[in-house]
Amino acid sequence: MFSSPLNNQEGRIFMREVAVIGVGQSVFGKFPGRTAASLGGEAVAAALKDCGMHPKDIQVAYAARAYDANCTAQAVLKEVGVTAFEMINVENACAGGATAFRGVWKEIACGRYDIGIAIGVESMTTSPIAGKLIPPEKDDLDGYLGMTMPAMFGMVARRQMEEYGATAEDFALVSVKNHHHGCLNPQAQYRKEFTVEEILQSRMISEPITLLMCCPNTDGAAAAILCSMEVARKYTTQPIKVIGSALLTGDYKYLQKDICASPVGVKAAQMAYEMAGCAPKDIDLVEMHDAFANEEILRYEDLALCAPGEGLDLLRSGATAIGGRIPVNPSGGLLALGHPLSASGVRTVCEVVLHLRGQAGARQTPNAKVGLAQMLGGLVTGLEHGVTAGIHILAR
Amino acid sequence: MFSSPLNNQEGRIFMREVAVIGVGQSVFGKFPGRTAASLGGEAVAAALKDCGMHPKDIQVAYAARAYDANCTAQAVLKEVGVTAFEMINVENACAGGATAFRGVWKEIACGRYDIGIAIGVESMTTSPIAGKLIPPEKDDLDGYLGMTMPAMFGMVARRQMEEYGATAEDFALVSVKNHHHGCLNPQAQYRKEFTVEEILQSRMISEPITLLMCCPNTDGAAAAILCSMEVARKYTTQPIKVIGSALLTGDYKYLQKDICASPVGVKAAQMAYEMAGCAPKDIDLVEMHDAFANEEILRYEDLALCAPGEGLDLLRSGATAIGGRIPVNPSGGLLALGHPLSASGVRTVCEVVLHLRGQAGARQTPNAKVGLAQMLGGLVTGLEHGVTAGIHILAR
Repeated sequence: MFSSPLNNQEGRIFMREVAVIGVGQSVFGKFPGRTAASLGGEAVAAALKDCGMHPKDIQVAYAARAYDANCTAQAVLKEVGVTAFEMINVENACAGGATAFRGVWKEIACGRYDIGIAIGVESMTTSPIAGKLIPPEKDDLDGYLGMTMPAMFGMVARRQMEEYGATAEDFALVSVKNHHHGCLNPQAQYRKEFTVEEILQSRMISEPITLLMCCPNTDGAAAAILCSMEVARKYTTQPIKVIGSALLTGDYKYLQKDICASPVGVKAAQMAYEMAGCAPKDIDLVEMHDAFANEEILRYEDLALCAPGEGLDLLRSGATAIGGRIPVNPSGGLLALGHPLSASGVRTVCEVVLHLRGQAGARQTPNAKVGLAQMLGGLVTGLEHGVTAGIHILAR
Repeated sequence: MFSSPLNNQEGRIFMREVAVIGVGQSVFGKFPGRTAASLGGEAVAAALKDCGMHPKDIQVAYAARAYDANCTAQAVLKEVGVTAFEMINVENACAGGATAFRGVWKEIACGRYDIGIAIGVESMTTSPIAGKLIPPEKDDLDGYLGMTMPAMFGMVARRQMEEYGATAEDFALVSVKNHHHGCLNPQAQYRKEFTVEEILQSRMISEPITLLMCCPNTDGAAAAILCSMEVARKYTTQPIKVIGSALLTGDYKYLQKDICASPVGVKAAQMAYEMAGCAPKDIDLVEMHDAFANEEILRYEDLALCAPGEGLDLLRSGATAIGGRIPVNPSGGLLALGHPLSASGVRTVCEVVLHLRGQAGARQTPNAKVGLAQMLGGLVTGLEHGVTAGIHILAR
């Protein structure tokens, strides 16, 4: 189903090692009075400060924004007072941030530039989608027919119950776990513990999905500074290497036999593992797309953190909680940390970097050596088009 | 003013020769009943037919759209029934198309993929900007203060009159020329000859800029298929080589001493000429950003088609008309062919390719060997941020 074997034969092309040396995040929450540029600028300033870099040293920028995007990189970088280099604005729904990160990685890997910044930013509260569902019930055929994101994930959840014996309690457990993680992250939008009961008793959105199984609307931004290894050594003794990168749009979802499956997520993971020269067992922590609680369980299987069909067992075993064998979304994930769409694909990388440096505080994955950041995106008519998967594997 | 010398040292990185083998354009005009995906699909189908390629052979896509952009590549390519490869959506105001083209060029030049498609599409009649000015008088500080595009170009025109002795007749002459060119292009939105008098007597928009000195609102799309030279030989005996590429965002425009100057346009042109290993005198035709008639005269100088300050003489000499020494905008340009913002940066490349192949019909530049496609972009608060210049030089 995927395109010719010439695709992504990363091995046959000249590539330099690329390091992430600076990461930063804005506050995450609802800030309708702040511009996207201001949120983006806050993240960029934090990333620059993180590695002690002067803004004028940036040579190329990729910025992602899904809604109301007009020259995002230009607007964000003006907040730190720099311009006059190559700027590229990208969009790929929730995978936009991963697309921006991969864009900068490509530039440095091929040798065109030595230092670049990936920016993801979204102001959901001021977007045209504010207060609406995705896709909106107007303007879009899927939305018009009622096939919004919560409806789709409700159907997926039902299938998980039928096929794998999942229960609403299992889905609630994901949310309990990620909200617990969020309590350990000073930058999370929501920092509150919930019980399984509380999750189940929150407002029903799309049976069996309750409000507290859905990610919130979030305004926020994240930024990551990438550079060649040679340059990295000038700034830090802890460069984090990008060892795997994959970005792939999948087949039309309506052609899938199994609504739970994510062939594109599986394929992109395989590509990233192959490039990284590592196996799922080598991964110490994962940040991923948990827009709805039940989804996280399926994503374990996409990333081969467990065998197909065993995602539920992995969750129930506690392995994916902080302190477990393979913590998933120690940041709090989209569920608790929040989900400014295009920011999330950069923000997940930032979280992985903090763990690999040993700087993740109370939520630190002990002795983390390799981490994986995954993001999925499909926005308007995401069901009709292919979903996009972006995966990056990082190592210290 | 421009970033470190490490920028765009294209010479030091591994690069393969890249060819354009297929070009296509949708109808250009006002089609509020058609989706952007449908316009894009029409352009993609035309480009595929142009080189006899099966859609499934595409390995990577970059698509540009400025307004209402949500997974543009995914939506457009569904029109020709293909998915399941890497898709990247970009935006850079009017330079979005040039950004998409450069993105595909980079992928093939570095060896990651062998075949890719660049798509530019815009539906101006259904965009949030429909019936408004850019930037809108609401939502944007520049617009709120009245500094919309026509106002800015009116000020620029006044300065051209003061500084260089330009007259309103000169500006009208650009429009007469490009509308004449448009009459020779079956795909132009407007195919009507105008006299200098008619241009001058059309409605005053922003003194001395009249309606017929402004580009129209246009819906439309363009697509270009790029590949490695090795692959190109399988499809065509007329591959057109991409010999120069530059994309650069400039300094803050309000810092410029001279409102007429475009330092970023000059710099990007220098970078593209250097990479191409050619001089302005080697260029046989140019497609460029003539959003307002007076602008074209300044752009002659940016591209060094004449000495600084001599743009007006070049225009008056007739050198830039079809049949002249260096035809500029033989397609009809944005003024007559139309300007679907993000489409224009791909469409200008398509026009250059047709001339280099000897397939430009009544508007053919005789024996064209090298052509240049330029686009400038600055959308919302384009005056406060840096303008982006995208330049590609192509050769047969």
